[in-house]
Amino acid sequence: MAASAESLASASVVGAQGPATTGQVVHTVYFWLKNPDSVADRDALIAGLKTLRQVPAVKSLHVGVPANTEKRDVVDNSFSVFELMFFDDLAGQATYQQDPIHLAFVENCSHLWDKVVVHDSFTV
Amino acid sequence: MAASAESLASASVVGAQGPATTGQVVHTVYFWLKNPDSVADRDALIAGLKTLRQVPAVKSLHVGVPANTEKRDVVDNSFSVFELMFFDDLAGQATYQQDPIHLAFVENCSHLWDKVVVHDSFTV
Repeated sequence: MAASAESLASASVVGAQGPATTGQVVHTVYFWLKNPDSVADRDALIAGLKTLRQVPAVKSLHVGVPANTEKRDVVDNSFSVFELMFFDDLAGQATYQQDPIHLAFVENCSHLWDKVVVHDSFTV
Repeated sequence: MAASAESLASASVVGAQGPATTGQVVHTVYFWLKNPDSVADRDALIAGLKTLRQVPAVKSLHVGVPANTEKRDVVDNSFSVFELMFFDDLAGQATYQQDPIHLAFVENCSHLWDKVVVHDSFTV
């Protein structure tokens, strides 16, 4: 019965054998600053992130700071700065990684952060 | 000197005393399924998330699954399903939490996940 259910589900748009491999990529990055109380460091990182808008592969860029939404066990707003990007596809994301503007950002700003967590998703 | 730098930075759009308290809210949620290999469970969660588009406070909704981007130390694509929403402001996000469509989603789908991590940001 389980095998049958799996078989039916394999008709799903996202495929049965793991994540989809085509389509729009949503790229989110959370930064924890080395000096979390430094407004100057935070603003330098924000300014650096905003240069990434010039990368042709980046279709949309949002930069954020933690919002003071209700404190709940599932909410982690301990990060300092947030970055959200959309790419047309996996190739766009790969191109971005090697773009000179992105490489300059990493060179100029990576000393600011202590920890970074990236998640990449395909829109379904 | 440090105090002076802090003082100058206080003119920043995001304020000197912590996160901004107005403006667009970006709400991201990462779900780890109880049965991560179940395509049926994943698709039930995806279908449930898509009902949230009907919540008036939700200005934009993207649902995703992990993308097979390059494996790097900073990339965590271990989650099963991703949700991204935009709200006009903090009040919109609070309204959403109590919306009957959202409450029905939690009632119908929360048995599917083992862990959920939420991050909320103000766009700067």
